[in-house]
Amino acid sequence: MEDNVLVIHGGGPTPVINASLYGVIKQAVESGGIRKVYGALGGTRGVLEEDFFDLLRIPEEERELLLRTPASAIGSSRFALEDGDYAKMPGIFRKHGIKYVLLNGGNGTMDTCGKIDAACGGRVNVVGIPKTIDNDIAVTDHTPGYGSAARYLAGTVHEVGEDVRSLPIHVCVVEAMGRNAGWLTAASVLARKEKGDAPHLIYLPERPFDEEEFLEDVKALYDRQGQVVVVASEGLRDADGNPVVEPVFRTERAVYYGDVSSYLAGLVVRRLGIKARGEKPGICGRASVPWQSEVDREEAVLAGKEALRAAMEGCSGVMIGFRRKETPGKEYRAETFRVPIKEVMMYEKTLPDEYINERGNDVTEAFAQWCSPLIGGGIPEFIRLDKYKKEIQS
Amino acid sequence: MEDNVLVIHGGGPTPVINASLYGVIKQAVESGGIRKVYGALGGTRGVLEEDFFDLLRIPEEERELLLRTPASAIGSSRFALEDGDYAKMPGIFRKHGIKYVLLNGGNGTMDTCGKIDAACGGRVNVVGIPKTIDNDIAVTDHTPGYGSAARYLAGTVHEVGEDVRSLPIHVCVVEAMGRNAGWLTAASVLARKEKGDAPHLIYLPERPFDEEEFLEDVKALYDRQGQVVVVASEGLRDADGNPVVEPVFRTERAVYYGDVSSYLAGLVVRRLGIKARGEKPGICGRASVPWQSEVDREEAVLAGKEALRAAMEGCSGVMIGFRRKETPGKEYRAETFRVPIKEVMMYEKTLPDEYINERGNDVTEAFAQWCSPLIGGGIPEFIRLDKYKKEIQS
Repeated sequence: MEDNVLVIHGGGPTPVINASLYGVIKQAVESGGIRKVYGALGGTRGVLEEDFFDLLRIPEEERELLLRTPASAIGSSRFALEDGDYAKMPGIFRKHGIKYVLLNGGNGTMDTCGKIDAACGGRVNVVGIPKTIDNDIAVTDHTPGYGSAARYLAGTVHEVGEDVRSLPIHVCVVEAMGRNAGWLTAASVLARKEKGDAPHLIYLPERPFDEEEFLEDVKALYDRQGQVVVVASEGLRDADGNPVVEPVFRTERAVYYGDVSSYLAGLVVRRLGIKARGEKPGICGRASVPWQSEVDREEAVLAGKEALRAAMEGCSGVMIGFRRKETPGKEYRAETFRVPIKEVMMYEKTLPDEYINERGNDVTEAFAQWCSPLIGGGIPEFIRLDKYKKEIQS
Repeated sequence: MEDNVLVIHGGGPTPVINASLYGVIKQAVESGGIRKVYGALGGTRGVLEEDFFDLLRIPEEERELLLRTPASAIGSSRFALEDGDYAKMPGIFRKHGIKYVLLNGGNGTMDTCGKIDAACGGRVNVVGIPKTIDNDIAVTDHTPGYGSAARYLAGTVHEVGEDVRSLPIHVCVVEAMGRNAGWLTAASVLARKEKGDAPHLIYLPERPFDEEEFLEDVKALYDRQGQVVVVASEGLRDADGNPVVEPVFRTERAVYYGDVSSYLAGLVVRRLGIKARGEKPGICGRASVPWQSEVDREEAVLAGKEALRAAMEGCSGVMIGFRRKETPGKEYRAETFRVPIKEVMMYEKTLPDEYINERGNDVTEAFAQWCSPLIGGGIPEFIRLDKYKKEIQS
């Protein structure tokens, strides 16, 4: 009897994707019924090429490094599978004694997960582990990877805000990842500790972007406080649904756009004559280990453990989701549950209206409260002389 | 008798500029002869407006927050002084009982330091505290602020390298600050832990940038390994000395250039047809506390302490510099010394030839050895499955 597990990573990585891998390995060891924990090297392509590596070969004392290794230790892919590819999988799984298949990824990967499940017809148990910095998977309250990327953005905008305030630089636009869903962009609100703190404006892909309103907002804040920090989604579109930045280049397969941060900074310089700069940390934020959220890391481990547990309990065609528990002191506690994979396949969850302010240039307090526990332990305190000045005056 | 100190910050901040401020406060308290430690709020403008804040009013237990607060807690400025401004200073200092004036900044600020010293004619002792992420101040081996910004860049490129390798993204260009001096760009070399690690190409402002050679280098690496991480200085210029990126906009006072990272990524897409993206962390790297180098932070504190000590010992018109000590085990140890301010005023120290490879697309091992101790404690280890694969094969 050889019951083996196969883990497959799909799509862009997160700072804690390997923490889920660690969770799978831990659960496999603890459950006792698993012989090998294969990682498919390079995502689904690795499955078709039977390029597997048994993760139990990593010495036990070195496994914890997975908790603090960003990107994907077993690789990943954006390789689209064809119908014939799915048909080959049951044979490959049988050949390698694979009884449990776990797919870690976003809604595209969950689509693959559902299709592999269908192709296997119950002979293999196929379970999804949610993962995305975009937090755009349906049904689950939130997704491992999001809390750490959110903490990176909040912490970084907090630091940039100090820099801009101290110099003063006039206008600084920070670009956030998330082309269609504004969850990550919105998380920058957690940089605010006091009234007047950065970010001063937040522009989300859920609202049409109006350049004239943007310039009005920037001008008003500049006149009042002399410095403005803007956080803008990389996916901003105008009222007609066209990206605000013109395509830089088109190939047969893809369109390349310029950077939103750089474009908006240029707009401020040209139209308002105010000095501005754009910053685009981009994948620097998707791979940042120092900004990992502890809550996120622990939940990523849990998602990996629960996925294997579900598969070993006979479940298939489900994804592990998170929901919040009611607690007496209203402190944050989350528990996992099993979501039918059909409910999450290819669906993109965007930021709901109640989390966006009326003018579409900020998020609401309700969003900040929802997001705050996910970044785990908050962001550092800085010294502010204003505090002591007030104490002296009062 | 009231001997007061005045600290003035100039130019762009660093992650440890406030650590030097902490050092000044600590030295003032320990020396016993100081009544007030004024910070000039908003740089030299704060001096002229007599906008001072006594930093001893920060409760002792909260002062350590200065060690981990980025940007400048007392503000800064790029405000150019006129001759008449210098003439006003002696009177202002006298009025506030200021005996010691410490200027913390780069070579521009050291110029101001020298001029204030001249204007005071020996009645006030004026000492410079070096600070710049660019590391371009003359005479001193290195400058507080550089080690932390260097650690940020090395650590971030290490993380980005994992991300790019795992997906695989094809080409990623990371832009580094430092318009004329390549010290910071060069520090990205410390991201390399094993052969083949990112960054694969490093382009410095000290060498003319040749687009054709760049495309050749990227193509060759792409063909060989499928993914290429490039680190490029924001200040790249062609053989005629013109910035490689066309000006986006010109005002009467300034020229605004596009981003080098975005430009080079676009070039790879257009000319080679290879998918590429650019990242520009920009001031995110100048303000990053999680990436502070411990060595850098401690040296920043020391520079602040030594500056006040020098002033109190009667020195004026000097800057605190660092030099390396010979040690038996060749481990890193640095000591401070006093540099005549005339030797550092407005001089920009660029990367010497022996630190740049022949083709101008990388740095040398000598540079890596020079830079390595400054980032203090290195950058995190990540898990690499290749290691275990090799062990199994051998």
